[in-house]
Amino acid sequence: MIKVGIIGASGYTGAELVRILVRHPAAEVAVLTSRSYAGKEMAEVFPHLTGFSDRVLETFDVEKVAAECDVVFTALPHGHAVPVARAVLERGKRLIDLGADFRFRDAAVYEAWYRVVHEAPALLQEAVYGLPEFYRERLRGASLVANPGCYPTATLLALVPLLRAGVIAPEGLIVDAKSGVSGAGRGLDLRTHYAEVNENVQAYNVGVHRHTPEIEQELAVAAGKDVRVSFTPHLVPQTRGILATVYANLKAPFSTGELLEVYRYFYQGEPFIQVLPEGVFPQTKSVAGSNCAHLGAVADPRTGRAVLLSAIDNLVKGASGQAVQNMNLLFGLPETTGLDFPGIFP
Amino acid sequence: MIKVGIIGASGYTGAELVRILVRHPAAEVAVLTSRSYAGKEMAEVFPHLTGFSDRVLETFDVEKVAAECDVVFTALPHGHAVPVARAVLERGKRLIDLGADFRFRDAAVYEAWYRVVHEAPALLQEAVYGLPEFYRERLRGASLVANPGCYPTATLLALVPLLRAGVIAPEGLIVDAKSGVSGAGRGLDLRTHYAEVNENVQAYNVGVHRHTPEIEQELAVAAGKDVRVSFTPHLVPQTRGILATVYANLKAPFSTGELLEVYRYFYQGEPFIQVLPEGVFPQTKSVAGSNCAHLGAVADPRTGRAVLLSAIDNLVKGASGQAVQNMNLLFGLPETTGLDFPGIFP
Amino acid sequence: MIKVGIIGASGYTGAELVRILVRHPAAEVAVLTSRSYAGKEMAEVFPHLTGFSDRVLETFDVEKVAAECDVVFTALPHGHAVPVARAVLERGKRLIDLGADFRFRDAAVYEAWYRVVHEAPALLQEAVYGLPEFYRERLRGASLVANPGCYPTATLLALVPLLRAGVIAPEGLIVDAKSGVSGAGRGLDLRTHYAEVNENVQAYNVGVHRHTPEIEQELAVAAGKDVRVSFTPHLVPQTRGILATVYANLKAPFSTGELLEVYRYFYQGEPFIQVLPEGVFPQTKSVAGSNCAHLGAVADPRTGRAVLLSAIDNLVKGASGQAVQNMNLLFGLPETTGLDFPGIFP
Amino acid sequence: MIKVGIIGASGYTGAELVRILVRHPAAEVAVLTSRSYAGKEMAEVFPHLTGFSDRVLETFDVEKVAAECDVVFTALPHGHAVPVARAVLERGKRLIDLGADFRFRDAAVYEAWYRVVHEAPALLQEAVYGLPEFYRERLRGASLVANPGCYPTATLLALVPLLRAGVIAPEGLIVDAKSGVSGAGRGLDLRTHYAEVNENVQAYNVGVHRHTPEIEQELAVAAGKDVRVSFTPHLVPQTRGILATVYANLKAPFSTGELLEVYRYFYQGEPFIQVLPEGVFPQTKSVAGSNCAHLGAVADPRTGRAVLLSAIDNLVKGASGQAVQNMNLLFGLPETTGLDFPGIFP
Repeated sequence: MIKVGIIGASGYTGAELVRILVRHPAAEVAVLTSRSYAGKEMAEVFPHLTGFSDRVLETFDVEKVAAECDVVFTALPHGHAVPVARAVLERGKRLIDLGADFRFRDAAVYEAWYRVVHEAPALLQEAVYGLPEFYRERLRGASLVANPGCYPTATLLALVPLLRAGVIAPEGLIVDAKSGVSGAGRGLDLRTHYAEVNENVQAYNVGVHRHTPEIEQELAVAAGKDVRVSFTPHLVPQTRGILATVYANLKAPFSTGELLEVYRYFYQGEPFIQVLPEGVFPQTKSVAGSNCAHLGAVADPRTGRAVLLSAIDNLVKGASGQAVQNMNLLFGLPETTGLDFPGIFP
Repeated sequence: MIKVGIIGASGYTGAELVRILVRHPAAEVAVLTSRSYAGKEMAEVFPHLTGFSDRVLETFDVEKVAAECDVVFTALPHGHAVPVARAVLERGKRLIDLGADFRFRDAAVYEAWYRVVHEAPALLQEAVYGLPEFYRERLRGASLVANPGCYPTATLLALVPLLRAGVIAPEGLIVDAKSGVSGAGRGLDLRTHYAEVNENVQAYNVGVHRHTPEIEQELAVAAGKDVRVSFTPHLVPQTRGILATVYANLKAPFSTGELLEVYRYFYQGEPFIQVLPEGVFPQTKSVAGSNCAHLGAVADPRTGRAVLLSAIDNLVKGASGQAVQNMNLLFGLPETTGLDFPGIFP
Repeated sequence: MIKVGIIGASGYTGAELVRILVRHPAAEVAVLTSRSYAGKEMAEVFPHLTGFSDRVLETFDVEKVAAECDVVFTALPHGHAVPVARAVLERGKRLIDLGADFRFRDAAVYEAWYRVVHEAPALLQEAVYGLPEFYRERLRGASLVANPGCYPTATLLALVPLLRAGVIAPEGLIVDAKSGVSGAGRGLDLRTHYAEVNENVQAYNVGVHRHTPEIEQELAVAAGKDVRVSFTPHLVPQTRGILATVYANLKAPFSTGELLEVYRYFYQGEPFIQVLPEGVFPQTKSVAGSNCAHLGAVADPRTGRAVLLSAIDNLVKGASGQAVQNMNLLFGLPETTGLDFPGIFP
Repeated sequence: MIKVGIIGASGYTGAELVRILVRHPAAEVAVLTSRSYAGKEMAEVFPHLTGFSDRVLETFDVEKVAAECDVVFTALPHGHAVPVARAVLERGKRLIDLGADFRFRDAAVYEAWYRVVHEAPALLQEAVYGLPEFYRERLRGASLVANPGCYPTATLLALVPLLRAGVIAPEGLIVDAKSGVSGAGRGLDLRTHYAEVNENVQAYNVGVHRHTPEIEQELAVAAGKDVRVSFTPHLVPQTRGILATVYANLKAPFSTGELLEVYRYFYQGEPFIQVLPEGVFPQTKSVAGSNCAHLGAVADPRTGRAVLLSAIDNLVKGASGQAVQNMNLLFGLPETTGLDFPGIFP
């Protein structure tokens, strides 16, 4: 059994890791830490885990975690994963960070968008960007995984195949994303206060969201050149789910069928990527609770543009599910281990 | 592998059975039937099953179903399960009905509340009421299971232990239940039209809901005498979940702790029943997607009354999960097989 | 024009007062105070008021408020309205308190449930309980109004007429209430964090909610004797609305029609009380945004019990609308002035 | 008093017209017709109107309507308003159509997108497109008003000023719109069934929605040349509100402040258009229930693009409120008559 430690277990991604891991046949939760809830049982903080987890949240102790765990997940505000990673890696264990600290190859980009100095730029070279559909081979041998952001996951799954295939132009890309509120975490804020969010849709961080450079970094890899996107995140009144609606200029008058064909070819054999039939559009509800991504596309001959649709559960494929998928890769397990369940509908 | 047939698979309970069974290690879906969607793939009707089920919905053919299946689940409007049951049982197979056709020991009660003639009253003697926490032994040897209604499940789990223990009176019971909208099924109706239900809470079928006699039948067993309840169902603007708030007169000045103690004693070892600590109240969100029931209680010395709280997912413990739990019992499997997963939170 | 001051204007009831008063033909908002947002424009804090209010929030200055206003509304945590009231009344102006400070005739009851010493018990004799349907005449001459709680308003409208008519017993009353989340105010709390409340129904403060003694005080007046109720509030995933489902023992086998007849007789001519036809049940959505209450009833001969249903908008008839209704009474205006608009549906 | 007839009053836009008109000081509802509910009281079909409307729904009788009304609102499926309009106009009365029958100057465009033959193309020349902010003068003298679609209203308010000012290019426009479910009307459909829509966001009619040519027609007027837009509507889990997120290429490196300045200049004096301060983004909740539109903008120097945000209530400014605004213009009333109320928040 793989012994797992979760640092920052009292947030939503931490709880979601536990939800997934309690039925993982080859892993077990060994240590859960929390600054705010140390000393409480996980099931007291999250009653849905009553009967499934009897672990008690602890304060973080790097020696204990490194001693008792084979792999550590960090679910922390940016900047806080660096010291944990250093300590864990030094002790020969592996680390999967669900935050932003290791997602950028270029520390300067991180520093420009996150406005902090990166304290271990050398680790950036070691880290592998944890999108298994694109980096599977490198992930198998990795010690340090940068689990992607939720918006980048949804966006990249839609764009990378078409960019690589050369059917869309890397110029003029627009990503209009709609996210459930759980993506904002469990911290209290008027912006996530029920009465303010319910029956409301709104954009936020227009043009300045920190997932923008992450998207652009990976699109540049796919396009072989620098890419700039307009990225606009929106909050919609639901708990889970991201729908990314992506607009791209077609390089030639491809049909909807041809776009879907590119997807199907690129993702054949992928257990978690479902390309929907022509005329069927992804909806977040169909992937809620699962590690799947649903993809759809429309080629619009009137405008010469492709409209791409990508739906994921922000807490699963957009965070904790993908992290477990990465863990499976790191430990040589089949990627679907512990993740082979459909979502909840309705 | 147990071969399973689902008759009426294109409704929500049918889809939920498939969601659960695709990861059941000892069962497999062999036949899915639907009147409205025959010929379509299940995953076309329910996209969340894309990649998890490749079965095609068929029209119902009793010979085929009986030949290919070990157990048949019926998820049909009342009255329609009787002929299926007869045919399936005659062929030596087992049947679990998710509707009301076999829930009553007395055909006259069924006929009075459902306003149809029962066409096979003899089968009522054969049927076992499928609440494993109360009828486990009888279920092990059963061929015909009457899977309980969602409201009765939530209500009985709260009331039966306290009635049996004699701490509450069988007179003056009041059940005020709040249900998510999925309980009303997938059939179109202005009452379940989004814009009419959202931001709305309302009572319906006050005093005349058909789950009333079902609740009363089982309470009478527990109390050893006839019982009458005031039962008021409400629709709340959410998809899944039932919370039953039950009011009962205490027979003596018991404390909250003593009520919870009765629950804990009664349900010890039960894998799906969680008695929450004093001061913690069940919430539907904590059981969404799981087969668990959460129970809480408050003894109010001011009024001499107990307030009991019971939360389940109406589609899981209130329908399809409980049906699979019953199937496990019928086939000698551990009851938790295929059901040992926590709910989804948030 | 009546000059109005609102103390604590940056909460939901404060904003709702402004929403109503900006179209009141005989009143105008003169002073808005807020501790947290002083110096900001009201429309900055509440963008829905953009173009309707150009007032700036100020810190509270009793001299200024008393000098510039004819009537003061206090929307403050309990205990905080007492000094404001004293100062305002001393200066010969009127005060309508939307909190609990003046709702109890007996200071000891207040002190027992709110666990603070009442600092001006003498004012309790002066205060009139602001339910115009029951205390209209006394309100006309009042200087100090205790605006009722949201749950008591919904509950009392359903119970008082039947108690006074003697058709239900004062013993054995049960109030099961469901409230939208706005009732919890704008203060941040995990209990009102979107992802925790959405898709969730739960009870809270079972048996100990502070609206209980307020309900009991007024029921005692109607019954002519002490009354004890079981009161259980629930949070449902919607922003506005309270539905109270009330259970009462019938003193004789009255019919549903007779119960409704009592309501119709009692409330004839009342502009804000709508008694729905037999078989139609109140729903919160039908009163959202309006000052109306919808009432329904079912007599259940099986149990000898009446089930009473009462729906209001917690922020309007349950708070700010009723406060303006009271203001109209105080100033000799028609009660519907500024309040004669239907709710928003859907 | 202006006598108003509403043809198709049992849908959401019909009910919303009644909600607005019952407090309109210079108009009164004279006739309400409905095919499905004729003979029922309006308040029976829509309980929120109990106490506000005692009118009975009738079957449509053109002579009666024309005789008793000064102006007729048609809220009918496309194609059905043409015969009503003809009959009403012949009798010298005015007509405001809330559907698509008179929105296009070119019958061929209508016929291509709506796939029916237009039966009175001559009326298209007579009809005035009812966006008062753009066509106020022509509306004052009009007899036939084509009330705009909800998506076009939100979109055009954002785009027209910037196109006319020449700060954005007419090429490359993308409109990503999110709508509440009430926009789909009261007709039953699995797509608007509560359990399918709740906790779900999805695109629909991608590239083929019928509001596309309406948007393009009006943008062409503003741009002085043909315009093609990518228009993608989405359904979000809320009842009311549209947020249009619009992407446009800046013709020069304008700042956010300059974009907002164009809006403020263009809309100065407009009672229903609120341009929000820099950094504040429109949200649907702030305009729910009101006839206001909130506008915001961000100039993104990284991409050379403007992101424009426009929020309206689809049933008010997007339908019935705008229709009443048009009626006011037709009858020489101040435009805000009966419409000068803020939205409901929270």
